[in-house]
Amino acid sequence: MSVTFATIENARRVLASEVLATPMLRAPRLSALTGAEVYVKYENLQVTSSFKDRGALVKLAALSAAERSCGIIAMSAGNHAQSVAYHAGRLGIEATIVMPVTTPHVKVASTKAYGATVVLDGETVTEAQRRAEAIAAAQDLAWVHPYDDTHIIAGQGTIALEMLEAVPDLDVLVVPVGGGGLISGVAIAAHAVNPAIELVGVEAALYPSMRNAITGENRPIGGQTLAEGIAVKNVGSLTLPIVRAHVADIVLVDEAKLEQAVNTYLTLQKTMAEGAGAAGLAAMLAEPARFAGKRVGLILCGGNIDPRILASIMVRELERHDRIVSFRLTISGDRPGVLGAIATLLGELGCNILEVGHRRRFLDVSAKGTKLDLTLEVRDRVHAEEIHSALAERGYRPVRIEPGKTIE
Amino acid sequence: MSVTFATIENARRVLASEVLATPMLRAPRLSALTGAEVYVKYENLQVTSSFKDRGALVKLAALSAAERSCGIIAMSAGNHAQSVAYHAGRLGIEATIVMPVTTPHVKVASTKAYGATVVLDGETVTEAQRRAEAIAAAQDLAWVHPYDDTHIIAGQGTIALEMLEAVPDLDVLVVPVGGGGLISGVAIAAHAVNPAIELVGVEAALYPSMRNAITGENRPIGGQTLAEGIAVKNVGSLTLPIVRAHVADIVLVDEAKLEQAVNTYLTLQKTMAEGAGAAGLAAMLAEPARFAGKRVGLILCGGNIDPRILASIMVRELERHDRIVSFRLTISGDRPGVLGAIATLLGELGCNILEVGHRRRFLDVSAKGTKLDLTLEVRDRVHAEEIHSALAERGYRPVRIEPGKTIE
Repeated sequence: MSVTFATIENARRVLASEVLATPMLRAPRLSALTGAEVYVKYENLQVTSSFKDRGALVKLAALSAAERSCGIIAMSAGNHAQSVAYHAGRLGIEATIVMPVTTPHVKVASTKAYGATVVLDGETVTEAQRRAEAIAAAQDLAWVHPYDDTHIIAGQGTIALEMLEAVPDLDVLVVPVGGGGLISGVAIAAHAVNPAIELVGVEAALYPSMRNAITGENRPIGGQTLAEGIAVKNVGSLTLPIVRAHVADIVLVDEAKLEQAVNTYLTLQKTMAEGAGAAGLAAMLAEPARFAGKRVGLILCGGNIDPRILASIMVRELERHDRIVSFRLTISGDRPGVLGAIATLLGELGCNILEVGHRRRFLDVSAKGTKLDLTLEVRDRVHAEEIHSALAERGYRPVRIEPGKTIE
Repeated sequence: MSVTFATIENARRVLASEVLATPMLRAPRLSALTGAEVYVKYENLQVTSSFKDRGALVKLAALSAAERSCGIIAMSAGNHAQSVAYHAGRLGIEATIVMPVTTPHVKVASTKAYGATVVLDGETVTEAQRRAEAIAAAQDLAWVHPYDDTHIIAGQGTIALEMLEAVPDLDVLVVPVGGGGLISGVAIAAHAVNPAIELVGVEAALYPSMRNAITGENRPIGGQTLAEGIAVKNVGSLTLPIVRAHVADIVLVDEAKLEQAVNTYLTLQKTMAEGAGAAGLAAMLAEPARFAGKRVGLILCGGNIDPRILASIMVRELERHDRIVSFRLTISGDRPGVLGAIATLLGELGCNILEVGHRRRFLDVSAKGTKLDLTLEVRDRVHAEEIHSALAERGYRPVRIEPGKTIE
């Protein structure tokens, strides 16, 4: 069986009223930011917070009664695990999910909470996969692959049907690419509706697997990425030829652009995207000229990001945009009252003091002197420079401490 | 003119295709959390990220040509300012917005960015109001009140029409209350469609203005609240009788519940709510029995929260739920390698070390000893206790440092 427009329409009937037909909304602030006319498909509003709910349910619904009663198995450290566990639970199918031992607690816990049996095994995805295959063979479990499966691909393709019904005249769809399941389904559906629509894939620059496969390049693959949901080393054997046939180009986005896109979704659109979910917007931020003036459909495909990481991205972006700045001052003499004088000065300049740290042990300060680290909330770069000058004039020798650098 | 179902229907025609008909979606995870069947109206997806866009546009569209050409004025430190500035800019009306001098930079900047003239004056909202009235009189500007205005109330009422079209059989609407504009419009529209629907208002416990007015209680008003968008001291003279006639009860929510609700929207619904925007959910978390088993419509009315505050809420909630814990250890001797031994132990116990701090200057430690502060990411309370025991067994004398408390 190959994936066609008809199979995707069938998949849509399977999903009707079982899976959310997510909102597809114009995003005026993203449009102003990028110079394109941007629409966002909010797949992060699905129950398990990613589009994986679609393919998983289509796959499970296609199993025979015998397969259902034997149970199913999947391997995933991420969104696929939760979607399979959730829908298997709803359908009363026993699910075994193999996850690498390095999987974050919170993902293990939520997969278990949906009623799946979780097997933690393997240091890597490859090792976990091997274990899952062994269990599948031993227990005769039906395999639910995260992307290289026609049912999965057809399920993900339903997203494009909904997008183009809401906004029929889109010029381009920008789609995150991991194994290629999402973009394959979306491309087949979109080109059936409108053969002229352009499909652009996006990969994390650290994981250019599909781009290597398509272009014959040999870029290195690996490393820590914010977009772990699309950090895939091996593309699918079903998805590769579909991508080759339908996708115009694959844009690579670096980590800084992924962070910026996650933060932009949060601050401008008030919505939470994981790294992979924000990859489409990251591509627009990385290459605005490619999209300028076009009607662009973005798939915000997942919202499962660790709260600690999100919090740290938010603060880092404030630093990048000169809303939070740090200065190290050198105070000779350390006479009482100097901190009071500095705080008063900063108050008059209209900035908030977020943190103060004394450092007395630097060897380039006299024994009675001190260094003072100030972290300040300011309006913008001009304001930061104004504060720098005022501190310098009063002899505090301020040095700006840049985010991401330490001065010791 | 009084507000009727007909005026709200008219308002809806004014808003059509000018303001977003926001998504109204079932929220299965909030339902599981609260024991009710919860639906969320995502007003935080409006262009300026709050429902205030509706009332502002209805009011501006109702001005005469003469009033438009003279220009308008409003006083606000928050969402009303941005909505008025945005729609006035779109309609080519000159807008003057008076904001207290204490308004955060980011709100001043975004109001200016929409093309309004911002006058910063007054330490308090009352002082700013007085200044705005003086300017309005001197320059003959039309006044755009944030809530005590029939056009504003009618505009906000359109939210209920959309909610009940999407989910006709809602049992109860839970609505944040500041001056009362939102709940007044929503109540009139909802009761016209379904007289049996229950209206529950929510105020921050620090600002029980409407509840005092309705019940005759005399609770104190004032203080720092996360829900500054509904921190209003004086309810409207138009809104008060409407609330009295339509609203069953007003629930008061404390700051901890507001924080928890903001965090819950973020982690379970992947959406960003400001304190006032999350007040409805906070009421459900505060009084679950009141809503259990009912079909509840929440209005997530705004998403403008300072990123620094949001980041801090996220981390505090992780601490509250024993996902991040801190211990202070006492190390006698400070021999080399002890940190390595501790780190190895913690690794074996399956927790991540987030922060390590040495404190050598406590006087209850011998000169060669040290105290060590560890911040750890753990699975849950049981895991935290397991780690505590393991550290104690090895003689490190761990003391748990609770969030919000300092041990010095």
